[in-house]
Amino acid sequence: MLALAELGSEHTVILVGRTKIIEDELHRLEANGTAGFAAARARISITEAPDVIEMTDRPTAAIRGKAHSSMVVGLKLHAAEKADAFVSAGNTGAQMASSVFLLKLHHGLTRPAIAAMIPTLKNPVVLVDAGANVDCSAEELVQFARLGSVYAEDILMRPEPAIGLLSNGEEPEKGNASVKEAHKLLAAAGLNFIGNVEGRDILSAGSARGALDVVVCDGFVGNVLLKFYESVPGLIFSMLASAGIQQELITQTFRGFDYSDYGGAPLLGVKGVSIISHGSSSPYAIKNAIQVAVRAVESRMNDHIGRRLGHAAVASA
Amino acid sequence: MLALAELGSEHTVILVGRTKIIEDELHRLEANGTAGFAAARARISITEAPDVIEMTDRPTAAIRGKAHSSMVVGLKLHAAEKADAFVSAGNTGAQMASSVFLLKLHHGLTRPAIAAMIPTLKNPVVLVDAGANVDCSAEELVQFARLGSVYAEDILMRPEPAIGLLSNGEEPEKGNASVKEAHKLLAAAGLNFIGNVEGRDILSAGSARGALDVVVCDGFVGNVLLKFYESVPGLIFSMLASAGIQQELITQTFRGFDYSDYGGAPLLGVKGVSIISHGSSSPYAIKNAIQVAVRAVESRMNDHIGRRLGHAAVASA
Repeated sequence: MLALAELGSEHTVILVGRTKIIEDELHRLEANGTAGFAAARARISITEAPDVIEMTDRPTAAIRGKAHSSMVVGLKLHAAEKADAFVSAGNTGAQMASSVFLLKLHHGLTRPAIAAMIPTLKNPVVLVDAGANVDCSAEELVQFARLGSVYAEDILMRPEPAIGLLSNGEEPEKGNASVKEAHKLLAAAGLNFIGNVEGRDILSAGSARGALDVVVCDGFVGNVLLKFYESVPGLIFSMLASAGIQQELITQTFRGFDYSDYGGAPLLGVKGVSIISHGSSSPYAIKNAIQVAVRAVESRMNDHIGRRLGHAAVASA
Repeated sequence: MLALAELGSEHTVILVGRTKIIEDELHRLEANGTAGFAAARARISITEAPDVIEMTDRPTAAIRGKAHSSMVVGLKLHAAEKADAFVSAGNTGAQMASSVFLLKLHHGLTRPAIAAMIPTLKNPVVLVDAGANVDCSAEELVQFARLGSVYAEDILMRPEPAIGLLSNGEEPEKGNASVKEAHKLLAAAGLNFIGNVEGRDILSAGSARGALDVVVCDGFVGNVLLKFYESVPGLIFSMLASAGIQQELITQTFRGFDYSDYGGAPLLGVKGVSIISHGSSSPYAIKNAIQVAVRAVESRMNDHIGRRLGHAAVASA
């Protein structure tokens, strides 16, 4: 509803799931006198998907055993070009596996990657991979850099995005084995590679050490860092509240740090637009996830990724 | 001076470095009328060490080429039992390499580890390894758990410390290859192992998921996380200041998050007490680093580590 109210009238939404539950929810919204309900409802269709993938289901078991889940049915609609993009707040592992299986990866990739936004004092930076892949080769880290670069260009409108490789020191010889090797490969990858960045450089992006748009790391480090960061506001708010600072002032001060502003993290590398949202997303977060999907489709991000990876393959051949 | 004023009169300090520079600084403090100067000065001796290890020197080059540096001379005093502990704010890599070379590792260890304190809303947790080792095997992660456990017992006075393994999910099957294997080993290691913890569990230690005293990870992840965390206060302070909140109130609210409260991170696993301080340490931070050294010596932490590792070797034999 929120997304449809914001988007142009050419946009429509297909809700995929158990029809009865969706219709009950729509009736509830109508009965509550939700603003703009009738106009929005006319642009919503429903596709039945009776199976439910639980958060505890294994990624591949979900595809094999639950072909009539909203995940599989929705991604099939996208693969068949009956939908331009797919957005879900379900089981992340299942969404990744189903997206790769049904949409396929771009040529030249071995894995997809999740691109998450990290709010900073100035401009947010893209963290890639934020959790899709745990043990990564140097070549995969370079793939993440290419994917993140297109994302920053197309979605954040940053020309020639500055790419930093997350490491335990600025010097090229710092890092674990994959990172050290990736440093060498990135220096010759034709990207705007600024070298290693440290944990402390992320929040000062755009100030201390100059431009930084994309932070590249494996999904283990990315996941740990992102979840750690997500837990910081809770700590700060508790401390400020116990110091007697007014709730309103706190909320206002940290407005730019609301994760739901970003809503969704795209799964980069698949031939399509698959947006991953938090399981605990608010309606506002889902609205923003849909906005991310629309920008990805309208900027033709997916084509750009395919072309960029094609060029890279030619350059390295 | 600050440390000597706090410590009992049985404690003395040997300052190792270029005698001329040290004496000039002592004269300056005396001329400034520093409180308690005469009493403190009587407990300070100076040992000459003309070589200087630069922050850019390679760790091993420093040992080989600069035998008369404060690092090597100071650690030799400790190895020869002319000092009970060693504290430095110099080149961390050189301190690690020199400590291993001169003090030797306890039997059963392949590497030392840095134990850093992470302030949380309740009790601080120990992060180990905070940067000494980048590519770690599962066995090394278990060693870090044993080292961190003794540290939490002896320095933080936490009986049976709760050990968490940092991962990208709570389930035992989550993690990179080393972490997954380490999970199995830790479950049988005779420690109070509470399982995997995520990035978001660190700051809520002691509240959300029950006790958490020690967080185990490889030094690459630990270094990234620690440096990221150290950069958070700067961001928060800027935001609060621009929201018009008084500087005093900010400082007071976040007092518990002052890194210099901890002052020094011990290099665990060497047969001795080698405390690593930030290169940018304040006098207050160095005072606290000396206090950490005193607690490590008085609690006989080093003997406890040796005994614990000995037991583990017998148990697994």
